[in-house]
Amino acid sequence: MKETLQELTEEMRDELSEQAHYLVQYIENNDKDAFLNSFDELHTFDQAIFYVSLTAQLRHQIIDWLKPVELADIFDEIDPEDVDFNDLLSEMSPHYAAEMLAEMYTDNAVDLMSDLDSKQLALYLSLMPKKSAEEIKRFLKYDDDTAGSLMSTEFIAINQQLSIGQAMVEVKQAAQEAEQINYIYILDDNGVLVGVISLKSLIVWPDAAKVAEVMDTNLITVSPADDQEEVAKIMADYNFVAIPVVAEQKMVGMITVDDIVDVIDEEAAEDYSRLAGVDVVTLEDNPIKSAMKRLPWLIGLIFLGMGTASVIDGYNYLVAETSILAVFISLITGTAGNAGTQSLAVAVRRIALQEKKSIFKSLLIEILIGVMIGILAGVTIFLVILIWKNNLLLGIAVGLAMSVAILVANVAGAFIPLIMDKVGVDPAVASGPFISTLSDLTSVIIYFNVAKAFIDHFMMH
Amino acid sequence: MKETLQELTEEMRDELSEQAHYLVQYIENNDKDAFLNSFDELHTFDQAIFYVSLTAQLRHQIIDWLKPVELADIFDEIDPEDVDFNDLLSEMSPHYAAEMLAEMYTDNAVDLMSDLDSKQLALYLSLMPKKSAEEIKRFLKYDDDTAGSLMSTEFIAINQQLSIGQAMVEVKQAAQEAEQINYIYILDDNGVLVGVISLKSLIVWPDAAKVAEVMDTNLITVSPADDQEEVAKIMADYNFVAIPVVAEQKMVGMITVDDIVDVIDEEAAEDYSRLAGVDVVTLEDNPIKSAMKRLPWLIGLIFLGMGTASVIDGYNYLVAETSILAVFISLITGTAGNAGTQSLAVAVRRIALQEKKSIFKSLLIEILIGVMIGILAGVTIFLVILIWKNNLLLGIAVGLAMSVAILVANVAGAFIPLIMDKVGVDPAVASGPFISTLSDLTSVIIYFNVAKAFIDHFMMH
Repeated sequence: MKETLQELTEEMRDELSEQAHYLVQYIENNDKDAFLNSFDELHTFDQAIFYVSLTAQLRHQIIDWLKPVELADIFDEIDPEDVDFNDLLSEMSPHYAAEMLAEMYTDNAVDLMSDLDSKQLALYLSLMPKKSAEEIKRFLKYDDDTAGSLMSTEFIAINQQLSIGQAMVEVKQAAQEAEQINYIYILDDNGVLVGVISLKSLIVWPDAAKVAEVMDTNLITVSPADDQEEVAKIMADYNFVAIPVVAEQKMVGMITVDDIVDVIDEEAAEDYSRLAGVDVVTLEDNPIKSAMKRLPWLIGLIFLGMGTASVIDGYNYLVAETSILAVFISLITGTAGNAGTQSLAVAVRRIALQEKKSIFKSLLIEILIGVMIGILAGVTIFLVILIWKNNLLLGIAVGLAMSVAILVANVAGAFIPLIMDKVGVDPAVASGPFISTLSDLTSVIIYFNVAKAFIDHFMMH
Repeated sequence: MKETLQELTEEMRDELSEQAHYLVQYIENNDKDAFLNSFDELHTFDQAIFYVSLTAQLRHQIIDWLKPVELADIFDEIDPEDVDFNDLLSEMSPHYAAEMLAEMYTDNAVDLMSDLDSKQLALYLSLMPKKSAEEIKRFLKYDDDTAGSLMSTEFIAINQQLSIGQAMVEVKQAAQEAEQINYIYILDDNGVLVGVISLKSLIVWPDAAKVAEVMDTNLITVSPADDQEEVAKIMADYNFVAIPVVAEQKMVGMITVDDIVDVIDEEAAEDYSRLAGVDVVTLEDNPIKSAMKRLPWLIGLIFLGMGTASVIDGYNYLVAETSILAVFISLITGTAGNAGTQSLAVAVRRIALQEKKSIFKSLLIEILIGVMIGILAGVTIFLVILIWKNNLLLGIAVGLAMSVAILVANVAGAFIPLIMDKVGVDPAVASGPFISTLSDLTSVIIYFNVAKAFIDHFMMH
């Protein structure tokens, strides 16, 4: 009776849509108790999916039935990229919305509020408890993509003087508020973070033991300004479920692994987007908006491509004399472009993995690879032309041009992102389409120069 | 006194290499106590990095000093893609190696043993405790990339009849063995999984409460044959730290979020690899091996590119007459290739995100986008040629060819992966280089046909 996940998720989906069907009926019949009973049985993530899928009118009834603190749990699960929060919030009274935002985990509330216009933002901040408003204001200052923007302030920190038994009492009290309690953080009398103890250790140690004696003092921390990608790497390497964020020796927050899962996916989607020259981080369902996202790269590269066209135009007299030269233009530009895209992808990936290698060594390796690939591809095309056209000189000319064009594209594909990384520009700006269009230009220059040299010397025509 | 993570990790690295320096000295001086004291202070991940970086001779001393169960913790942290496990294991006595493998988490041991040759595998299995050997044999049957290959068997499951107090006693006993104890799984008398309770809830509820009364019965489970990518999606959506694996209603394992972090990274790297036509999942430092990984795509596509070359060859008479036609070959193939890569990237990403949309609707949208992009790019190139060459008919011919070539490349880029996905082939096999080389072929066919029509009708030359 094995079932595949496909079936399982379909089943889950069917079950969910059946439940959704009943839930909608309960709302329409104004049957609050039946609705709340069924709704409570759903996972929060499923509640969020259901909530977002409703009409504004149906949502209005739910807002009426749930307290702000209850709706906050649901809003904590909504992906900010999937919906328009302005719309969702404007369906509530400002007081209700402010209270709900204050009850959300700070990092999620901030994610959501950073998209609001300044008037709305100021309104909600003025309506929520002062403490929440101040915390949110502090968070709003952290740049997107930094540890600060990801961290949660709902962590458990206790004094190192406590015994395990006392610590357990504090943990039980704090458990309702905390985002997760895998780790309990230990502070000294000045509030400086000095150690950590897992909940697992806490329940295993005898009540009388001192926290300071059993805590782990070998701490790995990050600071609020750190890049989220580097935080993700540390957490993935060390298999942490949470990591403390420290500023001026004080613990200011904690980043949990669920946020890191999203970061890894987002950063990978960004690298992928740049390789293709199109943003796939947020997918667009509207064809016009989709087209508008793709056009800038395409049109921009047409002008770079015009450079290539004008180089060929400059050799027009050669093509007019020896029209067979035109036959191999797309083969050479295409193959060199493919090689350049490959070395670009490898270089961007190495940078993303934060491999530490000298530029000099990286380039030397890429030159070696380019020479080997260039020679083998050149020999291949030489043999093909020899057989196809039975023309030795043409084979040598095209094969040689191919080899050199591949070497140049290969080195450019690796060199451009490496240099960009060194000077501090995001290396992925060097996109696949950019490298292959640039490589078209260098390839036709190489091709026509080699061809011209052969024609001049051997009078191929 | 803010420090960036870059500095921090550099600092960590410096600290680590200083510690490594002392550790090596302790080994060389045969100072076991000093070594073990310092070594114990490192995080297991850092111990693993240190261990792998040593010479075989130094490692031999560590093997001598550590028990198999201690070395097992370190081996649990080693990434199988980074090292040659055959070498590492052959440095130990077979008995030691077998015991260490038995002490590792089953999923990690299996990952590692699946790379061994069958003789070595049989030897280690014969030397380890029968129970471990049987478990590992069972795991070896699960395909790579399935839930079964990721799951750990070190989870905590208790009977639903227990009280919270009794459950806590069991959890304390089991805590040492379990990979993580965020969740305690609840079984009925037949061993069927009926509920789950978080450790957080367990410590908050009073001792006298019954587990069955407070457990969460709304379970989301996966089965061993499920695709790891789909498991990752569920865990990321629901923010789970662990998910139970169920076969024939019995709980057989648990997948923890640290494994899912690796899966997300690996699956993203796979999509990225295919987009570039080069494997970046495992990066190669050896230039010869690197070149060998890149060549198959390049050489294969040269033969597809020869198709394009022979199409141009077929229109050689046209180029000989009107050599300016050669000028725009690379611009048209390049731009259409870029558009095809964009729509390919979007389609592969949509498939990876498991968006459910009909093929018909997806294609309709992509056709609309292709028409819009094609017209705008065509008009751009028409205007450029009009200004540059002051030739209206050439501008119309090239602009029209460009529009149609982009539309075709755009639709092919989306259509090929969608069809592959529907028939069950991994859609990412349709790589970026393949789509752009294929688009070269369709583009030159379109270009020369349009040009020929114009020449025949308007006698452009």
